[in-house]
Amino acid sequence: MRAAIRLSREKMAAGFGGPFGAIVARGGTIVAEGWNQVTSSNDPTAHAEMTAIRAAAKTLGRFDLAGNTLYTSCEPCPMCLGAIYWARLDAVYYANSRDDAAAIGFDDDHIYRGFAKPIAARMIPFTRLELPEAAAAFRAWAEKPDKVRY
Amino acid sequence: MRAAIRLSREKMAAGFGGPFGAIVARGGTIVAEGWNQVTSSNDPTAHAEMTAIRAAAKTLGRFDLAGNTLYTSCEPCPMCLGAIYWARLDAVYYANSRDDAAAIGFDDDHIYRGFAKPIAARMIPFTRLELPEAAAAFRAWAEKPDKVRY
Repeated sequence: MRAAIRLSREKMAAGFGGPFGAIVARGGTIVAEGWNQVTSSNDPTAHAEMTAIRAAAKTLGRFDLAGNTLYTSCEPCPMCLGAIYWARLDAVYYANSRDDAAAIGFDDDHIYRGFAKPIAARMIPFTRLELPEAAAAFRAWAEKPDKVRY
Repeated sequence: MRAAIRLSREKMAAGFGGPFGAIVARGGTIVAEGWNQVTSSNDPTAHAEMTAIRAAAKTLGRFDLAGNTLYTSCEPCPMCLGAIYWARLDAVYYANSRDDAAAIGFDDDHIYRGFAKPIAARMIPFTRLELPEAAAAFRAWAEKPDKVRY
C-alpha cells in the first residue's frame, strides 16, 4: 500500500494527473504499477486502477487476473470497480475513501448514485434502439464454434 | 447505430473478442470507433465503449467528450457506464439489452448488483488501510497551485 501511495504522490507532482496510485501484487511481489494519467494522456479512462490492471494483464499475458490483489491509494470509482470485477482480482485494499476524494474535488458519488437509478432517471440520457441486426450479431456469437470466452 | 452493430459483427468474426461495437459521433459525423478486444489484446478493460471513448479522446486531443454521443451495439456494463460519466458524453444509444447479453453468456448483472451492496457484502473483499501518507497526498493535491482539474 505504501508503494501505491508513493506513486500517487510522485506522479501527481510530476504532472501526470490527480493524486492516485495503484499496485497489482501477487504473493507480496509487485506485478504492475498504475497512476492517474487522465489529463496528461487525454484519456478519461486512465485512472490509477485502470492503468495498473491494464499493465498487469499485459505483463502476465492474460486478461484474467485471478490470484492477484489490488492496492490503491483511494477507494475505486464505479468505472474502476467494474474493471476490478471483470479482471477477477482476488481482493482490493484502499487507503483514502470516496469521501476524502470528494473533499478535494473528485466527486464520483453522483456516479455511484446513477447506478442505483432506473435508466430513465440517469443524468445522461440512455435510449434503446432495438434493431434486428444487433440480435443477429448476438446469435452469431452464440453459434461461433471457435470463440474465446471471457 | 448500424455502424456500431456492423463493427460488433465484423470484429467478432475477425477474432478480436465478443460481439460488441461502439461509435462516438458528433453531429452525425463519426469521431471514433471501438470494438471488444478483451481476449485478443489481453486487456480486461478493452470493451467496445472503452476503446471507442479512448480513441475519441485521442482523436479530439481532450479527455472531456462533452458534445459527443455514444452509439453502442449493447447496453453498457457498469465499467463502461462509469467511463461514460467520466467522459461526460451527451447521450447514449444502445441496441441489445443487458438481458440479451446475459442470454449469450455475458452476465454483468452480478456486477450491477454489487454496486448496490455495502462494501462488506461485495463478492470481492474490499478493505480499508487508512494511512497518514495517503491523506498527506490528498492535501498536497489540494494545495498544488498548477493542477489541471478534470
